[in-house]
Amino acid sequence: MQESPDFDFAGLDALFAPRSIAIVGATDSVERIGGIPLDYLLRFGYTGRLHAVNPRAATVQGLPAHARLTDIGEPVDLAIVAVPQAHVAAVLEDAAAARVRSMVLFSSGFAEIGAEGAAAQQALQKRAREAGIRLIGPNCLGFMRPGHQTYATFSPAPNAGRVRPGRIGLVSQSGAFGAYAYSLARERGLGLSLWATTGNEADVQLADGLAWLARDPETDVIMAYMEGCRDGERLRAALALARERGKPVVMFKVGTSELGAAAAASHTASLAGNDAVYDAVFRRYGVLRAHTISDFFALAASAAIAPRPRDRSIGILTVSGGVGALMADDASAAGLDVQALSEAAQRQLREWVPFAAPRNPVDITGQVTNDISLLERSAELMMQDRNFASWLGFFAAGGLSDAFWAVLRALVEKLRAAHPDTLLAICTLCSDARRAELEALGCLVFSDPSAAIRCIGALASLSPPAGQGGAAPTPAAAAGPAVRLAPGGLSEAQSMALLAEAGVPVVPHQRVQTAQQAADAVQALGGAIALKVASADIAHKSEAGGVALDLRTAGDARAAFERIVARARQACPGARLEGALAARMVHGGVECIAGVHRDPVFGPVLMFGLGGIHVEILRDVSLRVLPVTREDALAMVQELRTFPILAGARGKPPVDLQSLADALCALAGFAERAGDTLASAEINPLIARPRDQGGCLAVDALVIGTPAATAAATACTAAA
Amino acid sequence: MQESPDFDFAGLDALFAPRSIAIVGATDSVERIGGIPLDYLLRFGYTGRLHAVNPRAATVQGLPAHARLTDIGEPVDLAIVAVPQAHVAAVLEDAAAARVRSMVLFSSGFAEIGAEGAAAQQALQKRAREAGIRLIGPNCLGFMRPGHQTYATFSPAPNAGRVRPGRIGLVSQSGAFGAYAYSLARERGLGLSLWATTGNEADVQLADGLAWLARDPETDVIMAYMEGCRDGERLRAALALARERGKPVVMFKVGTSELGAAAAASHTASLAGNDAVYDAVFRRYGVLRAHTISDFFALAASAAIAPRPRDRSIGILTVSGGVGALMADDASAAGLDVQALSEAAQRQLREWVPFAAPRNPVDITGQVTNDISLLERSAELMMQDRNFASWLGFFAAGGLSDAFWAVLRALVEKLRAAHPDTLLAICTLCSDARRAELEALGCLVFSDPSAAIRCIGALASLSPPAGQGGAAPTPAAAAGPAVRLAPGGLSEAQSMALLAEAGVPVVPHQRVQTAQQAADAVQALGGAIALKVASADIAHKSEAGGVALDLRTAGDARAAFERIVARARQACPGARLEGALAARMVHGGVECIAGVHRDPVFGPVLMFGLGGIHVEILRDVSLRVLPVTREDALAMVQELRTFPILAGARGKPPVDLQSLADALCALAGFAERAGDTLASAEINPLIARPRDQGGCLAVDALVIGTPAATAAATACTAAA
Repeated sequence: MQESPDFDFAGLDALFAPRSIAIVGATDSVERIGGIPLDYLLRFGYTGRLHAVNPRAATVQGLPAHARLTDIGEPVDLAIVAVPQAHVAAVLEDAAAARVRSMVLFSSGFAEIGAEGAAAQQALQKRAREAGIRLIGPNCLGFMRPGHQTYATFSPAPNAGRVRPGRIGLVSQSGAFGAYAYSLARERGLGLSLWATTGNEADVQLADGLAWLARDPETDVIMAYMEGCRDGERLRAALALARERGKPVVMFKVGTSELGAAAAASHTASLAGNDAVYDAVFRRYGVLRAHTISDFFALAASAAIAPRPRDRSIGILTVSGGVGALMADDASAAGLDVQALSEAAQRQLREWVPFAAPRNPVDITGQVTNDISLLERSAELMMQDRNFASWLGFFAAGGLSDAFWAVLRALVEKLRAAHPDTLLAICTLCSDARRAELEALGCLVFSDPSAAIRCIGALASLSPPAGQGGAAPTPAAAAGPAVRLAPGGLSEAQSMALLAEAGVPVVPHQRVQTAQQAADAVQALGGAIALKVASADIAHKSEAGGVALDLRTAGDARAAFERIVARARQACPGARLEGALAARMVHGGVECIAGVHRDPVFGPVLMFGLGGIHVEILRDVSLRVLPVTREDALAMVQELRTFPILAGARGKPPVDLQSLADALCALAGFAERAGDTLASAEINPLIARPRDQGGCLAVDALVIGTPAATAAATACTAAA
Repeated sequence: MQESPDFDFAGLDALFAPRSIAIVGATDSVERIGGIPLDYLLRFGYTGRLHAVNPRAATVQGLPAHARLTDIGEPVDLAIVAVPQAHVAAVLEDAAAARVRSMVLFSSGFAEIGAEGAAAQQALQKRAREAGIRLIGPNCLGFMRPGHQTYATFSPAPNAGRVRPGRIGLVSQSGAFGAYAYSLARERGLGLSLWATTGNEADVQLADGLAWLARDPETDVIMAYMEGCRDGERLRAALALARERGKPVVMFKVGTSELGAAAAASHTASLAGNDAVYDAVFRRYGVLRAHTISDFFALAASAAIAPRPRDRSIGILTVSGGVGALMADDASAAGLDVQALSEAAQRQLREWVPFAAPRNPVDITGQVTNDISLLERSAELMMQDRNFASWLGFFAAGGLSDAFWAVLRALVEKLRAAHPDTLLAICTLCSDARRAELEALGCLVFSDPSAAIRCIGALASLSPPAGQGGAAPTPAAAAGPAVRLAPGGLSEAQSMALLAEAGVPVVPHQRVQTAQQAADAVQALGGAIALKVASADIAHKSEAGGVALDLRTAGDARAAFERIVARARQACPGARLEGALAARMVHGGVECIAGVHRDPVFGPVLMFGLGGIHVEILRDVSLRVLPVTREDALAMVQELRTFPILAGARGKPPVDLQSLADALCALAGFAERAGDTLASAEINPLIARPRDQGGCLAVDALVIGTPAATAAATACTAAA
């Protein structure tokens, strides 16, 4: 996968950092769409050149009005276009003639209204690209850059109070959500570097905004609201850039889009909804995904204040044992490591407070109100003992008390100075002003202890930026020549052969065309065999009666061949039968399933799970977008809820995890070499066995070439 | 189980609603433990009789000081005792002599400091009971009743601002948490009827507080913070009373206590942690369990404002399609039913707003800012179309705009008048004052849409109060005579016989003592058999090599008998072998596990799950405390994540759910008849089969009589 689409940063700079702005359709009325941005720009003090364009006015809001963009006679970086849909094309021609470099297009009436609008949008997109004009919209609320007094929006939100400039950039596909998020940012005191809405995304997409923010020196943290992605490669490139620059991306994605028809026949696709693929993409690039709006803002605000914890260790100090237990429970759910203090430190704490809980969480009890010095002593003792990557103190309503506040503030100052690379967090009730004071010291402040733990857990999951051990690990190489698959489903034998060639261990097998060949296969394959009818038209061979297992003698095999062919003919009268596949029986082991499915947006997605109900009913599968490293492949196996089964539950020997990781890498390599010609490849079952039994073994496989839709439509499914 | 412990409500009335209060250890210093409550009572205007007791002062805070309680010469309902631990016994004697009716005991130095303190507490408890004095504490922060200016606490929290009187009662075992919760209630504007902390619970327990609140006419909703429960029967009785009175209980429980030693040998116990039993208890009584402090308060506040929705249907109106999708996702996770509007209503909405999403959630888009009447028209249309039990409107930052606010308020008034029994909720940013205005109309107000949905989902899960179809359903009768089990594990044969007698269908089986008897069993049992060594000393027969399956001939059975006995002797040299159990082989079906385990606090707990890894690794089990109804038993089967397997996944026939429910009821009935003599009973496997194959069948069982610890300690476990 190529990960470097051209973002045209110069064009995006003209859009988001314009030295001159023209408002087309500018009016005097500051409540109308053409009046609002000019009003903001004038009132809030935009320092670049400003031009009003309105053919029916001499002046607008005190500025001389030009009839057309071409009349301005000066370079225009950005045109804010607030005209009805019917006039947009003409304005674009004007803009091209005037060499305008970028454009915000508020107008609705494009792709969102149906085919006719979509055609108009397509034309617009084409013309803008020809003219070298970067275009945000149409049907968007535009953008704002609070630190530069740049207000290219008609959202009324800034009139209720402006968001202060800050180091968080926010890009939203939705205008409604964007306006809401603007208000939330203001109410929560968040500072923004950029606020942008991308609307119909004729040209500038969410990904462009993310990429621009990844390079923006005024941005530390990126917030993104997404409903769906058309261009997976662009999104991945933007996320890769943000990770490379060490900027956390906090993502809020809602909704799920339809799976492509090509995916319908593939098991993999039916198992992993589209949203799970987004999750896999986010995970690939270390994106923090928020699932509530509260967490969306809490995560972004926290990431902007606190350093990334260097590991998952956390020290917790509390004045309530109950809340301590709550935080410990939450911490374990969040994957944080609540390491016990050393025996010596615990003894010391017990000396100070006989009924303290000294392990971690450390509960110094209400005793702290009698001896306030306990606070600092305990905190320092904890940090000296374990040098926790994160430290969280719970102080109930202490932040509301003037006396306690003074002590708390001093504590945070001392801890910050003594442990500059530790994530500090305080959970207490306090005023917004006090909260801001602690935040200015680089200390997170929460009112809800569970929210505190969730945030710290999320931040601890961030990977270090490039240059600090955080460079993307090298993917497992897709060695070998390119593979070009014919469209449609391959036979089991063909599928097995391709995968074997790619390095997947497959069960000894051979094609048999007659009952006699089936009988001979028992000896040829060296033991009991399974027989399965061979037909690209039969998707579910078992349900069609086309499978016979554990055939130990030539006689058994002969009879079974006749039987399964007859049954399959009856169940699927139209299916083309091509004899059967004889394979050596594999006994024992754990049935797994591994697959690759081409997602229409994000390309090949690797899947692994335990077979049968664990995949189908419990949805216990792990996914990764390609390319994957060998570590990724191993992690896919280990993160299953059912992993203990593979690790050797109930006294059974552990399976060979390395051979599973190797098989997944081989499958991924095959998918990469097959490129666009692969719709899906699935190994089901992939039998996981202990190392001394030879590791894992593919027993059945189905490879489908693009377009898969055809293959799917003609498949015979005997199941109800 | 008897569910009517004596709460002594008259005694609790004297405690929580005292007409006269004496403070023992009263001092002038309003910052000391003996000065704070008197200061509060005087300053905040307690209207009952007040007495100061201090042998070393003539007056205290302006009141004449008595040397002892007996000097008061008037009836005293409540003595607030703020003296060191060493003086408590003497004060109690005084109180008994003065016929004081109840006591708040702040003093620490009792059970929380170890054995010596525990003994002192025991003596205290005994003496108080003899004297008929209800005692809250020791080692507690006392209680407050804001509506009656009753402040029997030394918590400094009221000094930072008092909580207003209201209709929520809050009881906390922890003083630290209680004080924190008091501050949170104040900051969030919650009104409280009672705030109480129970500390060491020498007499008055959390359950007593809940029971008193259940009867209190000034309380509508009960909040409880719990760390653990000593007296399960009392807690259950209190929760039953609250449910009977139709008062929602919102529970915040943290931590887990150690499982009793008696439980160690039981599979059931090792599967279901103690906290899962609490969950089962909460579920039994319709308790709303909160898992974060935010939700704890949001749920209680919501329950106090809104009517219980009559069903799970919800209509959602939004001005942001994205947030609409989010709410729909959340609603489905919360088990709410987002019913689509009728075609006609959808058409109407499309006429009004061509690009509206008219299904539900209804997205009327930003168009509402151009035509504000859309708001009311759409909401009314939704309600007339579907008469939703709950209706939620998302209006972004609309609540901050004066113009929009006026429309929103009018909308809520109209909806409230037109649909008095619908739960109304608004999600918007707005001031606390505006929020209070809507809440006064009985409309919930949220800022986070996910929190809104979580709350509505929880409230919709409340069962109706008694008299509205909400009376506790009649449990399945425990028919038959009482059973008295001998201590320790019974043999498999004995266990099977007992369960068969109780109505559990068991596999045909017989005891065999010799290889010849084993051989004869093949014919006697009518087909292939399994042989398992019989020994109460061998817990894991398979691991000991003591099991042989699918023996089809007399010869096979004979050889197998010799083999398994020899193997078991080798694996467990000390075990007493009593021949073997021969049982007819059961083919097919789904392996399940059913059991009853006596929880040390809550008594018998019924468990059901799918066998093997689903129970052991995935912890997919359902639990109920006894007694259970047949509906409960059926629900236990249906709520498993793995239920689709029983319902007939992958083309297999569904198993007989009714026979599973019957078997669970039979097992529960057996447990009830065995009473305290039963430590645990486990059927593993219980084979679930389709109805035409005879329904479910117990294939192995183990019944253990109390005390089970002995049996566990002597069991031979061949497994690693």
